Amino acid sequence: MKYSYVSHLYCPKCGNEYDTAGKQQLCSCGSPLLVEYEWDELKKVLTPEQLTKRENSLWRYHEMLPVENEEHVVSLGEGMTPLLKLPVLGKEMDIHNLYMKDEGLVPTGTFKARGAAVGVSKAKEIGVKEFAMPTNGNAGAAWALYGAKAGIKSTIVMPKDAPKITRNEVALSGANLYVVDGLISDAGKIVGKAVKDYGLYDVSTLKEPYRIEGKKTMGLEIAEQMGWEMPGVILYPTGGGVGLIGIYKALKELQTLGWVKGRLPRLVAVQAAGCAPIVKAWKEKKTESEFWPNSETKAFGINVPKALGDFLVLDAIYQTDGCAVEVEDESMLEEQKRIARLEGAFICPEGAAVFSAIRRLRRDGWITRDETVVALNTGAGIKYPDTVDSDVPVIKKDTSIKI
Amino acid sequence: MKYSYVSHLYCPKCGNEYDTAGKQQLCSCGSPLLVEYEWDELKKVLTPEQLTKRENSLWRYHEMLPVENEEHVVSLGEGMTPLLKLPVLGKEMDIHNLYMKDEGLVPTGTFKARGAAVGVSKAKEIGVKEFAMPTNGNAGAAWALYGAKAGIKSTIVMPKDAPKITRNEVALSGANLYVVDGLISDAGKIVGKAVKDYGLYDVSTLKEPYRIEGKKTMGLEIAEQMGWEMPGVILYPTGGGVGLIGIYKALKELQTLGWVKGRLPRLVAVQAAGCAPIVKAWKEKKTESEFWPNSETKAFGINVPKALGDFLVLDAIYQTDGCAVEVEDESMLEEQKRIARLEGAFICPEGAAVFSAIRRLRRDGWITRDETVVALNTGAGIKYPDTVDSDVPVIKKDTSIKI
Repeated sequence: MKYSYVSHLYCPKCGNEYDTAGKQQLCSCGSPLLVEYEWDELKKVLTPEQLTKRENSLWRYHEMLPVENEEHVVSLGEGMTPLLKLPVLGKEMDIHNLYMKDEGLVPTGTFKARGAAVGVSKAKEIGVKEFAMPTNGNAGAAWALYGAKAGIKSTIVMPKDAPKITRNEVALSGANLYVVDGLISDAGKIVGKAVKDYGLYDVSTLKEPYRIEGKKTMGLEIAEQMGWEMPGVILYPTGGGVGLIGIYKALKELQTLGWVKGRLPRLVAVQAAGCAPIVKAWKEKKTESEFWPNSETKAFGINVPKALGDFLVLDAIYQTDGCAVEVEDESMLEEQKRIARLEGAFICPEGAAVFSAIRRLRRDGWITRDETVVALNTGAGIKYPDTVDSDVPVIKKDTSIKI
Repeated sequence: MKYSYVSHLYCPKCGNEYDTAGKQQLCSCGSPLLVEYEWDELKKVLTPEQLTKRENSLWRYHEMLPVENEEHVVSLGEGMTPLLKLPVLGKEMDIHNLYMKDEGLVPTGTFKARGAAVGVSKAKEIGVKEFAMPTNGNAGAAWALYGAKAGIKSTIVMPKDAPKITRNEVALSGANLYVVDGLISDAGKIVGKAVKDYGLYDVSTLKEPYRIEGKKTMGLEIAEQMGWEMPGVILYPTGGGVGLIGIYKALKELQTLGWVKGRLPRLVAVQAAGCAPIVKAWKEKKTESEFWPNSETKAFGINVPKALGDFLVLDAIYQTDGCAVEVEDESMLEEQKRIARLEGAFICPEGAAVFSAIRRLRRDGWITRDETVVALNTGAGIKYPDTVDSDVPVIKKDTSIKI
């Protein structure tokens, strides 16, 4: 039995195919590439029951991941994050089965670790010695640290406003770190030039095909943790949208394997009102988004004015009868507080945006009382210390307090 | 089969026994209490094989935990953290089998979540409506958030120098938060008075018996993840020492069950040179430590000048032929950097202190090349943003970079 049943790369736009041995980036038509597997062969040798005794990491799904030789796996213990039931919040929202997949419990504290783990492992397998990427913070931190583990040198360029903690993570990893007086698009231009000048492997979002494969494991895990029963709705905070693309890909692949049956969950892209290009495109029934000028939101991770994979996100929404929702910053920060008070979870603002969307969709009747709802929290609240204001007065040593 | 095989509480100093139904705090003799189980009965009904298919959380060991009714379990998905092999660092240190148990991958980002999960669950079971504690930050954050999940009101008092992020966690949970212009000992006095004045349950370190039970799951997991083979050495950053006490208790219990055989691992307490009361006591072959005046270290979590359970920590060291090691702040911060560069892990300074100790103990020959060494990293590096200095110059938008 093989470690991976990866077959080839294909372009979802023009249908071109590529092999997985080379340092493949975008398709010649400009589209991101997707990974295909030998499903018929895999169906014969793997059953869901075989998974139960495997290690608690995303590598339990190695046959459906692109790394062909186990020795190339670069792991810091990522994956199999908890799927928590939220009964108190659910009751408040009048949803009987409300769950949160908590992606704060991974190395580097955000779901970006999944993409980095699989992306860096495959980069190691195909012989990459050095890669480069622009980042708003979390992805760069994850790729730099996994790169260090793999012995691959990385160049990371981030805007000066990216969270300080992510800057420190990159610096500590020993990566080449550049901080630019501009936006992520400016960082992207600098990386683009460096990639050309020095022949680096470009690991910008969707410019290499394997990050999606890491992200798709969120979908695989949700299905396994639900006993291979599909929830009614899955909601995802959407910036670049790779997570949503990955979850959709995973669920389709599980259908192909025959491991899940019936209707796919309705997929919902949640964006910040200050940066909602996918929501706008969905409302206008378009298949691609337009650049969102002067984007602004406290949810730094979903401040992406134009995503390279927007057409794939929109396709996932249309195919599953999902929707796209925008949320005001104020509303997501209020929801962040409610979740901590009612359910004890300190989640990131992006994750909180999802709960804000759930509350609204339930009120509007788009989500019904009895369907199972899964919210993705994409990172730990502790990575965003500045979203919380705790202006507590300092008391003197010998004070008595009143309860 | 029962959910828990808990039997009673006993005093390791005077032998007094107490039941587990009441709100028990210290023994009447002033010592912390420990939890005992019905081992003979449990031995007949539980085998290690039965564990393999259970959920990936510390509740997989529920028979050996004090919560008797599953409905009282308060969980945010804590436990079964990765045990990572560190081959590159191991090679550098000339240790063939070097492992790190990464406690950064738990809710709230530190191992304190284990104690809080079990402690709060048991508090819920015995009908606690309100508790109070002093904290240097991480424990208070964990107890406040788990308290919120349980619907138990909490009062948390912390020094004004405690990390801001932990202050925000407590504030967000809706707990009564007090910040005192003083040290944790001053916070302790304020809590002591409030406990008396308002009849609160005192959940200060070791003043309730169940936190240790949560911490002991680290020992259970290490044993299970090693296939029930004992490592040669386990090292732990030691402040209050509850983790070390818990790990020792777990391993002894596994011996009683007959699940592990042979010699227990040598247990090593690692402290900061600026606060090393256990190291001093061990060097002087004493069974208790003395208060360490003017303690100071960047590893905030192990700045504990006198631990209530010091005699239990020292006993664990003596009984296993372990030792106690002190580490300079500079050395631990250097090690934090090396681990990020060589192994891609951003760990907390307390965890880094352990690796600094390992390097020294190997050089001195106390650790041999061929024995299996397990280092506990007690928290995520992202919770300590200020330990890293990333003073990177800001470049302009249209710059080309040189690789």
